[in-house]
Amino acid sequence: MAKRGIRGLELRRILAENIRAYRHQKNLSQEKLAEICGLHRTYVSSVERAERNVTLGTLEAFATALGVSVPTLLTRRDHQHDQ
Amino acid sequence: MAKRGIRGLELRRILAENIRAYRHQKNLSQEKLAEICGLHRTYVSSVERAERNVTLGTLEAFATALGVSVPTLLTRRDHQHDQ
Repeated sequence: MAKRGIRGLELRRILAENIRAYRHQKNLSQEKLAEICGLHRTYVSSVERAERNVTLGTLEAFATALGVSVPTLLTRRDHQHDQ
Repeated sequence: MAKRGIRGLELRRILAENIRAYRHQKNLSQEKLAEICGLHRTYVSSVERAERNVTLGTLEAFATALGVSVPTLLTRRDHQHDQ
């Protein structure tokens, strides 16, 4: 499992980029997104820096707040069918 | 966020069904999958019962072991393009 850390980082980066992009699309600040998700602003900020090993429950909260599916949140945007 | 628990449960159920199905496709026991992922067999068992709020890192380990992507692991199989 030598590559696990690197692979996990790549996925965290995709998530970080997508959350930021969909948040901007919806004109939400980190504070507002955090409030909708029931999270702290500093937590959202660290997710957007790809620092957090988020759980399924938190992924679901982000996806719901941003109006996308969890698989979409974890897929590079240039690979998505709707881009 | 009243629906968050229910929504999270649905996603955990999709994950549970997919891990079990892809594990069977690869003829892997829970023990063997756990060993490949660096997890305990009882943890894999509880994920397949939709009891665990797994992290992104663990999702990546399952996906790598099963030869699928993380978004695929989180998508209902009858909605997937390759089914």
